[in-house]
Amino acid sequence: GLPFALIAGPCVIESESLCREIAQSVKATCEALGIAYVFKASFDKANRTSGAAFRGQGPVKGLEILAGIRQDFGMPVLTDVHEPDHCKLAAEYVDILQIPAFLSRQTDLLVAAGETGKAINVKKGQFMAPLDIVNAVKKIEATGNERILVCERGVSFGYNTLIVDFRSLPQMATATNCPVVFDATHSVQQPGGLGTASGGTREFVPHLARAAAAVGVDAFFLEVHPEPEKALSDAATMLPLASLAGLLETLQAIERAVKQ
Amino acid sequence: GLPFALIAGPCVIESESLCREIAQSVKATCEALGIAYVFKASFDKANRTSGAAFRGQGPVKGLEILAGIRQDFGMPVLTDVHEPDHCKLAAEYVDILQIPAFLSRQTDLLVAAGETGKAINVKKGQFMAPLDIVNAVKKIEATGNERILVCERGVSFGYNTLIVDFRSLPQMATATNCPVVFDATHSVQQPGGLGTASGGTREFVPHLARAAAAVGVDAFFLEVHPEPEKALSDAATMLPLASLAGLLETLQAIERAVKQ
Amino acid sequence: GLPFALIAGPCVIESESLCREIAQSVKATCEALGIAYVFKASFDKANRTSGAAFRGQGPVKGLEILAGIRQDFGMPVLTDVHEPDHCKLAAEYVDILQIPAFLSRQTDLLVAAGETGKAINVKKGQFMAPLDIVNAVKKIEATGNERILVCERGVSFGYNTLIVDFRSLPQMATATNCPVVFDATHSVQQPGGLGTASGGTREFVPHLARAAAAVGVDAFFLEVHPEPEKALSDAATMLPLASLAGLLETLQAIERAVKQ
Amino acid sequence: GLPFALIAGPCVIESESLCREIAQSVKATCEALGIAYVFKASFDKANRTSGAAFRGQGPVKGLEILAGIRQDFGMPVLTDVHEPDHCKLAAEYVDILQIPAFLSRQTDLLVAAGETGKAINVKKGQFMAPLDIVNAVKKIEATGNERILVCERGVSFGYNTLIVDFRSLPQMATATNCPVVFDATHSVQQPGGLGTASGGTREFVPHLARAAAAVGVDAFFLEVHPEPEKALSDAATMLPLASLAGLLETLQAIERAVKQ
Repeated sequence: GLPFALIAGPCVIESESLCREIAQSVKATCEALGIAYVFKASFDKANRTSGAAFRGQGPVKGLEILAGIRQDFGMPVLTDVHEPDHCKLAAEYVDILQIPAFLSRQTDLLVAAGETGKAINVKKGQFMAPLDIVNAVKKIEATGNERILVCERGVSFGYNTLIVDFRSLPQMATATNCPVVFDATHSVQQPGGLGTASGGTREFVPHLARAAAAVGVDAFFLEVHPEPEKALSDAATMLPLASLAGLLETLQAIERAVKQ
Repeated sequence: GLPFALIAGPCVIESESLCREIAQSVKATCEALGIAYVFKASFDKANRTSGAAFRGQGPVKGLEILAGIRQDFGMPVLTDVHEPDHCKLAAEYVDILQIPAFLSRQTDLLVAAGETGKAINVKKGQFMAPLDIVNAVKKIEATGNERILVCERGVSFGYNTLIVDFRSLPQMATATNCPVVFDATHSVQQPGGLGTASGGTREFVPHLARAAAAVGVDAFFLEVHPEPEKALSDAATMLPLASLAGLLETLQAIERAVKQ
Repeated sequence: GLPFALIAGPCVIESESLCREIAQSVKATCEALGIAYVFKASFDKANRTSGAAFRGQGPVKGLEILAGIRQDFGMPVLTDVHEPDHCKLAAEYVDILQIPAFLSRQTDLLVAAGETGKAINVKKGQFMAPLDIVNAVKKIEATGNERILVCERGVSFGYNTLIVDFRSLPQMATATNCPVVFDATHSVQQPGGLGTASGGTREFVPHLARAAAAVGVDAFFLEVHPEPEKALSDAATMLPLASLAGLLETLQAIERAVKQ
Repeated sequence: GLPFALIAGPCVIESESLCREIAQSVKATCEALGIAYVFKASFDKANRTSGAAFRGQGPVKGLEILAGIRQDFGMPVLTDVHEPDHCKLAAEYVDILQIPAFLSRQTDLLVAAGETGKAINVKKGQFMAPLDIVNAVKKIEATGNERILVCERGVSFGYNTLIVDFRSLPQMATATNCPVVFDATHSVQQPGGLGTASGGTREFVPHLARAAAAVGVDAFFLEVHPEPEKALSDAATMLPLASLAGLLETLQAIERAVKQ
């Protein structure tokens, strides 16, 4: 197989300048390491734990910021969609549409995304077994779109905790024939664990990413931020931008070791 | 507190005649037993396991069937909404809007439902702890709408299995001050358990309903069908219409025993 | 079936006087309500979270205290055994030997207990599915002993939490043909949840007991204490002695309601 | 840290010749790769799912077989103990005593094992959170014995399934300061999943072992057999002897990649 790609960026579009700072930094790192890079950011956080939380810049302004990054930095861009109506609009600005985990059974959304012809990254629901992702893939494939990625981001384990079953990576690969993405930052989320926000155990992002590299994966999804603790969303899980390069080098070394 | 109410009907609007047969039968049973009755049916099943499964009659035809039942039988009617845009439309036809469990964190949907001023039944997500429902309630309350019901329907337990934590009923009641509904038929679902459909253990619906009556609950949610094994959705979990009266009598007897 | 029986007493034999105080109080309550009563207490707590915790009076002194209660109050007595060697000794003093949940797969212990000819109460392991109890029952039955009770006390749910799947009561009854006991106090345990001790949510003992009565059960197992917060073991889960009579009356009313 | 060690052998002592075949083969592999090797086999399987299953050769014959291997092949030997009384006996024959996962809270067993002065490998119970292992370690340390290994082998996830939370490896290392072992074969067990036996997903042993190597671990525990499908215990999870060398080479390559 090919070496792993990277999907990375901030959780939400806090500001255009922050997005550009991150895009530039990650791009430089990936070019130095020879890693294909896709910028990601959400133009809307439609399922924040609390209704009072920051949701982003709104669709139009957000999508324009993403399109600007795509044009100026020359990398593909990914964003997530939450309603069927958003798919066509978002598809005009970005290269990959992402289906959020909570919405991975919503047929209309999967179909509307598929119909754009764009590549689709489907996150496996926190309530799904690995093989359940097959049904989501089939819903998209029914539109004639076969450019599908499937993404592991943890499964519900008791209350307010996710756990990653690393058997899911080969299981999803075999069952779908799609490239498999590992979302190392959301996998350490503690959903709702802070009462009015989701907590997380950021310190274990490198461990889980290394495990995924050793198991075998086609791409990593990582939310990064220059100062995670000041982030407006997912502060407890994002990786500090400064530690990205070191982690990627380790993941590359593991991948080479496994493929020897 | 008041005696329990009943929300019951088929999973999906298979046909107008089936809906009317069920509405008439359940209405007669509830009148005989002195139980307040709300008819429920879905005009669209937006998150079927498989994209090839039957989804219903579509919004307009489905909502007109519901409105006809409401008018002819004189009972309130409940249906579920899956996109913000549907809320205003559905509110013109029904009395209670229901937020599906998978969508219980989607802020826009909760807000759009709340803004209709209709009563809202929020199902607790399969990925939520009991206290997480507070955030969903607050999102609705922020619209000024305080007519909110919260509904238990099981929590993810390993793969393809739900389990009911009956501590959630008093926990949700205390934390939200909302009436608590127990959905006894979806609680025995085995999501995705049949590969391309959800399985279930219908034989345990009465046991779990009795448990909820003994713990204390404001309403029961039950999907019923004259011939569940022939149903076009949720065949593995719906209660046979013929066994409803007997179950309700037992639940009433338990409720009286607890309130003595 | 017969009306439910009660197995109740303190977690551990803190002192002879405490045991007698509890035995006398519960006996009077059960006689007034017409409930068959079995006194329970552990002569040794062999699996405390912390090695520094109080373990009891030791086998000989503890068993003599139990035998004295049995003789003076005229009720059957139950205690738990942790090693094959203890079974024969304990069987000389008590009527029912109990297999702790953690040990419910230990073949030698099950066989040694079975060979005493005493009735055996097997707790379902926190790591067992309901039908797994069949294997434990068969190990005992292989000794020719068919006086077996099976007991639900919750199943592992994420970390440091137990959850009760009330489907297990009818499932175990059907699969084993044994009387089914519901342990309402250990079912609310949070194992290891306090770091060096197990926590619990005592406030939900009545809710879960009521649920079990409504589902249907042959006996309740309840740990009681005049002042639970001062208890030397399981302080977070034991029921205050003063609230036992009221709970039993409610459970009886529910049982009658269900059997009507 | 040091490079990883290997604890490997058959599940149970089926026969002396089988044990010697495995010991010789694994020893040769480990010498070629420069891996420290500990032979393991159980002289008794005290907690088989079914009482009718093969349990081994019995303590004395089994321990003599282990001692013979230790002497003739010159490697340390590990076996598991199930009752306090067995510890002193087993300690005369082997180098490391292992506490089975189901018994990891049994204070007397932990203390009796600790008092032998032998190294102790404590498996984390399927019902334990990672930090709960601290209490098991403290019970052993209270005997003055500080030669303790802690071992991850999966945690209960729903019914009849285990899942590995790889965060547990660094969590246990930090909390106990003990070397951490990863048991890759029991981690893919489906306890009780075959009705009267435990099933498993042997095909994922290499994936989980690679993940552990990437996360970082001090030793691997692997049950191996020349023909797993003919094994008398744990047939569904043991690794074929012929695939061991290739797996170990990959694990070494991963370890080197991580430590660069």
